Amino acid sequence: MTSSASVGTNRVVEPDVTLADRLLRELQDRTSDTRGVTRMSYGPGEEIAHSMVRREAEALGLEVETDAACNLYVTLPGKIETPRIVIGSHLDSVPMGGNYDGAVGVLMGLSVLSGLVDAGLRPPRTITVMAIRAEESAWFATSYVGSRASFGKLTPSELETVVRAGDGVTLGKAIKDAGGSVDDFDKGRAFWDPEDVSIFLEPHIEQGPLLSLKGTPLGIVTDIRGSLRFRSATCTGEFAHSGTTPREARRDAVHAVSTLVVELDRLWQRFQEEAQDLTVTVGQFETDSDEASFSKVAGLVSFSIDMRSNSEETLTECLSGLETLIDRISNDCGVMFDLGARTSTSPAKMHPAVISGLGVAAGSAQQPVLEMPCGAGHDAATFASLGIPTGMLLIRNENGSHNPDEYMDMADFAAGADVLTEFSLSPPDLPR
Amino acid sequence: MTSSASVGTNRVVEPDVTLADRLLRELQDRTSDTRGVTRMSYGPGEEIAHSMVRREAEALGLEVETDAACNLYVTLPGKIETPRIVIGSHLDSVPMGGNYDGAVGVLMGLSVLSGLVDAGLRPPRTITVMAIRAEESAWFATSYVGSRASFGKLTPSELETVVRAGDGVTLGKAIKDAGGSVDDFDKGRAFWDPEDVSIFLEPHIEQGPLLSLKGTPLGIVTDIRGSLRFRSATCTGEFAHSGTTPREARRDAVHAVSTLVVELDRLWQRFQEEAQDLTVTVGQFETDSDEASFSKVAGLVSFSIDMRSNSEETLTECLSGLETLIDRISNDCGVMFDLGARTSTSPAKMHPAVISGLGVAAGSAQQPVLEMPCGAGHDAATFASLGIPTGMLLIRNENGSHNPDEYMDMADFAAGADVLTEFSLSPPDLPR
Repeated sequence: MTSSASVGTNRVVEPDVTLADRLLRELQDRTSDTRGVTRMSYGPGEEIAHSMVRREAEALGLEVETDAACNLYVTLPGKIETPRIVIGSHLDSVPMGGNYDGAVGVLMGLSVLSGLVDAGLRPPRTITVMAIRAEESAWFATSYVGSRASFGKLTPSELETVVRAGDGVTLGKAIKDAGGSVDDFDKGRAFWDPEDVSIFLEPHIEQGPLLSLKGTPLGIVTDIRGSLRFRSATCTGEFAHSGTTPREARRDAVHAVSTLVVELDRLWQRFQEEAQDLTVTVGQFETDSDEASFSKVAGLVSFSIDMRSNSEETLTECLSGLETLIDRISNDCGVMFDLGARTSTSPAKMHPAVISGLGVAAGSAQQPVLEMPCGAGHDAATFASLGIPTGMLLIRNENGSHNPDEYMDMADFAAGADVLTEFSLSPPDLPR
Repeated sequence: MTSSASVGTNRVVEPDVTLADRLLRELQDRTSDTRGVTRMSYGPGEEIAHSMVRREAEALGLEVETDAACNLYVTLPGKIETPRIVIGSHLDSVPMGGNYDGAVGVLMGLSVLSGLVDAGLRPPRTITVMAIRAEESAWFATSYVGSRASFGKLTPSELETVVRAGDGVTLGKAIKDAGGSVDDFDKGRAFWDPEDVSIFLEPHIEQGPLLSLKGTPLGIVTDIRGSLRFRSATCTGEFAHSGTTPREARRDAVHAVSTLVVELDRLWQRFQEEAQDLTVTVGQFETDSDEASFSKVAGLVSFSIDMRSNSEETLTECLSGLETLIDRISNDCGVMFDLGARTSTSPAKMHPAVISGLGVAAGSAQQPVLEMPCGAGHDAATFASLGIPTGMLLIRNENGSHNPDEYMDMADFAAGADVLTEFSLSPPDLPR
């Protein structure tokens, strides 16, 4: 199978789409769950994915390295050895997620390298495909674990205190169990420095509906939304008999959190009307399964809040709105809110030269593209925050992401791989 | 310990409050859970309570019987043997509930019988204290199991299909495991007929704050609220990425059910303003713990609805209001509601002659009482629905019910036992 987009261009290098297609099927088979796929960070599913990429890279005769955090680096040396171009994404997934989120980026990088190897071409600049660990913070409540680790940016405190959802294993132990080394982090040792990376590119399926709606297979990201999250908030009221407790005497945690959810949506709507970039989500809302009953007013609710924006100011304003709501609802409903620990990531701008470089490559590959912001957080934000010229290429995807119904057409994958191949053959000249 | 209220009246018969106090402490010790007490219907805690009552009844030389559903009957023969006066309540509790809900009624009956035995008195009419099984429908999603069973009113379908929350054991198997006989129900055999019961009295702690607020130790119930319940409703939307799914494209089940909760409260408020008796409670609200995540829009919520009123018409009107809301919210939020199976109980009126008889007894015992409706469902409703003259005596209780913080003063218990003793010595003359 060769990329259909490349047929008309008489390109010398054809990305190996067949390889990616085969590996996507194998991943689906080997990491499937009751619904969708589950590739837990530093867990069995992620391990399978890493071992597959290593196997294929070795078969292609590429250089293979890992670092202390078990990130995997697959390298094809170029005419200029350093700093190099890095094409990377992650191989973990959310619980019962889709097969494409993350994996597509790594496999697209691999299909580009395979194409170059097949053509017997030494690219202008060394290219490393990076399979990054633990990007899905549904598992460890801290962001961009693998990419930060590669620069020695994990803290000893994170390694000891952040535990994995589901099994409670600390991040440090999970890394060690996967064959990594925690001692190296304690010494602050990094796999590389920002200066070693000329350009970081993350190909990724789009996680929203925009490309589908516009009928465009590819998107070039302008900026990545930052986030402000409360993953384990609680609301405490008072358990009471549902038939005998008058409305005025209730301290109903379900009613209080429901009011918060409805009011947060109104707050979001107001920001939207002011054209401020924002999403607000309460994805978890749980009464205590032991103590709650249909015949009791609920005295306890656990819930989460996830706010995202491409503007730090908007996140700060939204937080202040949340605090005002909580004060009012606490007072009205006789409940107490505890938002718990806050985690956050900063919004990140993609580099203008990388954005235009991707546009030029898309032109050469005769692929239409759309410039757009990106709502989800990505490892690309880590690279951008360290001053590395960074870009993201989005691939059209149906049915959203973080769910089993993700669907990417392999023709769109091929279009993306064509653009990346063009980019790799003629990378923009950057002053580093 | 003698009842303080009886000291001034030179009463011949003193209820045995010491016995009840001792048994309440033993119950607390032997059925305590991580929080509060747990006496599962046909489970270990309920078994302990029944064995204790049997032990004490035998020690007092009272007649002891059980029926096919393992209800326990403790009888002191009177001058008129039949129909008899029955004083009864249940011995099970909700999970992590309080020690007084149910048990107080049985132990108050026992303390009255013990007082009569101690005085060597044969009461005017036979008195049976009934320890009823499985009243707390938090366990089996059907109401008044034990009291209905005593009249042969359980259906074979209930025995086979209704399962216990937590362990999924069918009602039929649970009865058999407790030593009862399911075959007897299949033949429709009853322990007794409505004609065998002259008067049914249920003493019970109040489960709301009214007696406390009014500073009155005892209440005489005028009617019992009926209920209309959806114990396992669901709302299905679509799981989606929290950072990339625009507000308009979301089918957010948490937002939809939260809106329903807020709107149901407004509906309740409107009924209240029209002086219609009603409570509306969403006690359970759960996102799927496997599939939900802080970083996903929730595609599935399970929840419960409990509506109660002393008027069948109000329940019907409230249900119609609920249906209208669900239509609107389904449409607005792009979700689907499935309310699941409905269970219901009818409101029940207490008998005027029993209400006034309790009033007279309270006068004789020099105890102030308050006439009031009862918000919770009780086995008394079963007896009333069969045309048996029925009454309820409520005992003041702090901190509501169905929670570990129930608190009844033993002086209030003694006051109630005094009233029941007076009632037993001079029951109202009823035409049966």
